[in-house]
Amino acid sequence: MFLAKIYITLKPSVNDPQGLTIKGGLHNLGFNSVNSVRAGKYMEINVNETDRAKAEEQVRGMCEQLLTNPIIEDFRFELEAIKD
Amino acid sequence: MFLAKIYITLKPSVNDPQGLTIKGGLHNLGFNSVNSVRAGKYMEINVNETDRAKAEEQVRGMCEQLLTNPIIEDFRFELEAIKD
Repeated sequence: MFLAKIYITLKPSVNDPQGLTIKGGLHNLGFNSVNSVRAGKYMEINVNETDRAKAEEQVRGMCEQLLTNPIIEDFRFELEAIKD
Repeated sequence: MFLAKIYITLKPSVNDPQGLTIKGGLHNLGFNSVNSVRAGKYMEINVNETDRAKAEEQVRGMCEQLLTNPIIEDFRFELEAIKD
């Protein structure tokens, strides 16, 4: 079994209103050292596969078909082997 | 300057309806090897500090005061030094 840790971020050229709002909130709280905030998503998916290459292919497929919007988002992931 | 990469996850005991919905969607697409999905948040914050310990303290403060709900969420972060 593998635990896939998936990081989804907006492409650098895409506006991030959520990140701007968070930045404003942090400034209001006195965290003036904050230059920029980009908000993204994080997912942990437990994949029941024994073969690492197969698991990787599956997770890439999930990202491309459902988890991300390829027009505005990038993704990367890592696989961690876990005991069944 | 530091880039803080912040990972926010629901505590293991907390229900995750978003994760369950994603799991259902993945099964519908034929990804039957998916056992479980936990959805979380990921943020990249650019902190204008020269001292690593100070930057770390700042980011911990941001997480505790604004970015996470400590009742239902856990967080972890890493700091990456970047050129000004």
